[in-house]
Amino acid sequence: KQVVLLPGDGVGKEIMQSAKVILEAISNEYGYSFTFHEHSIGGDAIDKYGVPLPQQTVEACKEADAILLGAVGGPKWDNISAHNRPEKGLLGIRKEMGLFANLRPIKGINALLSASPLKEEFIKNSDILIIRELTGGLYFGEPSERRDNGNSVVDTLFYRRDEMERIIDKAFQQAMKRSKHLTSVDKANVLESSRLWREVVEEKRQEYPEVEVEHLLVDAAAMKLITQPNAFDVIVTENLFGDILSDEASVLTGSLGMLPSASMREDHVGLYEPVHGSAPDITGKGIANPLGMILSTAMMLRHSFQMDEAATEIERAVNYVLDLGYHTPDLAKIGQKAITTKEMTDLI
Amino acid sequence: KQVVLLPGDGVGKEIMQSAKVILEAISNEYGYSFTFHEHSIGGDAIDKYGVPLPQQTVEACKEADAILLGAVGGPKWDNISAHNRPEKGLLGIRKEMGLFANLRPIKGINALLSASPLKEEFIKNSDILIIRELTGGLYFGEPSERRDNGNSVVDTLFYRRDEMERIIDKAFQQAMKRSKHLTSVDKANVLESSRLWREVVEEKRQEYPEVEVEHLLVDAAAMKLITQPNAFDVIVTENLFGDILSDEASVLTGSLGMLPSASMREDHVGLYEPVHGSAPDITGKGIANPLGMILSTAMMLRHSFQMDEAATEIERAVNYVLDLGYHTPDLAKIGQKAITTKEMTDLI
Ligand SMILES: CC(C)[C@H](C(=O)O)[C@@H](O)C(=O)O
Ligand SMILES: CC(C)[C@H](C(=O)O)[C@@H](O)C(=O)O
Repeated sequence: KQVVLLPGDGVGKEIMQSAKVILEAISNEYGYSFTFHEHSIGGDAIDKYGVPLPQQTVEACKEADAILLGAVGGPKWDNISAHNRPEKGLLGIRKEMGLFANLRPIKGINALLSASPLKEEFIKNSDILIIRELTGGLYFGEPSERRDNGNSVVDTLFYRRDEMERIIDKAFQQAMKRSKHLTSVDKANVLESSRLWREVVEEKRQEYPEVEVEHLLVDAAAMKLITQPNAFDVIVTENLFGDILSDEASVLTGSLGMLPSASMREDHVGLYEPVHGSAPDITGKGIANPLGMILSTAMMLRHSFQMDEAATEIERAVNYVLDLGYHTPDLAKIGQKAITTKEMTDLI
Repeated sequence: KQVVLLPGDGVGKEIMQSAKVILEAISNEYGYSFTFHEHSIGGDAIDKYGVPLPQQTVEACKEADAILLGAVGGPKWDNISAHNRPEKGLLGIRKEMGLFANLRPIKGINALLSASPLKEEFIKNSDILIIRELTGGLYFGEPSERRDNGNSVVDTLFYRRDEMERIIDKAFQQAMKRSKHLTSVDKANVLESSRLWREVVEEKRQEYPEVEVEHLLVDAAAMKLITQPNAFDVIVTENLFGDILSDEASVLTGSLGMLPSASMREDHVGLYEPVHGSAPDITGKGIANPLGMILSTAMMLRHSFQMDEAATEIERAVNYVLDLGYHTPDLAKIGQKAITTKEMTDLI
């Protein structure tokens, strides 16, 4: 399998090293073979090539079976003009590769619940999969421009019906593999795009009669994630709502550093990255939490390579090490066994 | 003072009765005189007049010194077509009256913190004022329509610079009256409208050099509200982000039923309503929490009528009654003294 590695910025390089170690262990154990191709993205690419997404990175990704990404961005590039910022690399690769389906699983891990901002009775037993549309909506709609000599401004929330259909179909498929409950989030009392979205959900559910479907307004969803996170199974929503809600959900369990994500298209090619950012404050110290990256690697094995057994083994190893009480310093609240990135990786 | 009362739907009627009782007590004590004019809005108006915002309601509101609103909406009207739903009454009155500034204070009340989903160490000492732009952005931008035979759809996020200036100015003014810390929330790494928003904030801050200003992306804000709610003072943001974040914030303290809101324009006219909805499940039982409505009434006295002393007296009475352990059944978790809407109102 050809795997493109995009370490990116900040702790991205350190945690990408962990991904490699884990994949090498897996290939030894199972006889798989992974070939790594490392390329630049984000601030790192701006420094080296002057742009956040160099052409050779795009080309390598297009040849790959899967992509692992560390993190992009950092204060060093914060004052660069909007059109050449590190994040443009991330938005660009999603669009160039057509990675329309962002999968973000959020599961409370018992050993870590004491680090959650939520009381245990609220957060326990939560197991949510947020599915966010990733290549449409306000992120890419045109026009997006100043008007009237800069005295007004417009952005455009545009969706094609088939863009809605494919992400909603993906969500139903995932719901079928889980508890068969799907919450579709929109703002149908205000937005025409949300009303079309709701119609598409209503059409699709005919194909999946076993799945229980609930529609929730985005403001109500933002509340319910906090008051009843364990009432959710799969959540599907458009790009910007997904950005906000998945980040909101990511802090509920108290272990942001552990959360993985996958960005997929219709075939099995995907880009996998931890949910946390580049963490400039701890970069270079060797203490970054590699678990988000390692669990993203497990998602790659499962979703891109159908190596379910290997994926499950990684996930069990992570839980086992956490159950023993080991953790990186970002989870210091939960006990005394704080270890480094490398120690954590070796234990897994 | 001419006060228009819009009880609306569900528990709206019951809690509006509480507002009247409180205002009568205030007028007896301070020698003020309030004249009440009751009108229809929302589902109630649909039932009576076939539209969610009858012309006579608009006209009465335009003559008023202030407006009190109970709640709109309910399952009874859920299947009505989008253009004639109860919520359209609310959106319509905001737009007709030019109520561009939505003020939503969220303050943890010690007596109630045990009802919060958050651990006490996270939520304690939180005191946030969210200021949401209420008459622009995706809510009202044109075009908002199907295209291409219904195969695509567009909504428009439109703002004029002067619409940004007036809400951001309002936010700086409020910050000056509080802890002089302003968090401006946008999505400047993606949206052109957010980049203009950020520029306007940077310009305005020159006029308020004492106010400390922070820019936060909306996804990061959705996280920080949960992990560090007490790090905020005033938050200002555009309409849709404000809708999501203010609802998210409203559940943090565990006492949604107590939260008031004000929707203001440049003069002193404003519309005041509790944050909670019409609560169809408890309608008619006489157990709705009237505190959100009563505290909205206090906001009216302060912001529309400059009756600060009376406003403060109401707020102190509310805190006092809660400290004694009394509460409506929605806060049952916090102890045994559950009382009715009327009992609570009479105690205050
Ligand atoms: C960096 C930014 C453009 C990006 C987004 O908004 O999609 C990020 O927040 C994410 O969620 O991956
Ligand atoms: C009812 C709805 C249209 C409204 C809004 O989105 O503004 C409500 O959620 C609110 O926040 O007052």
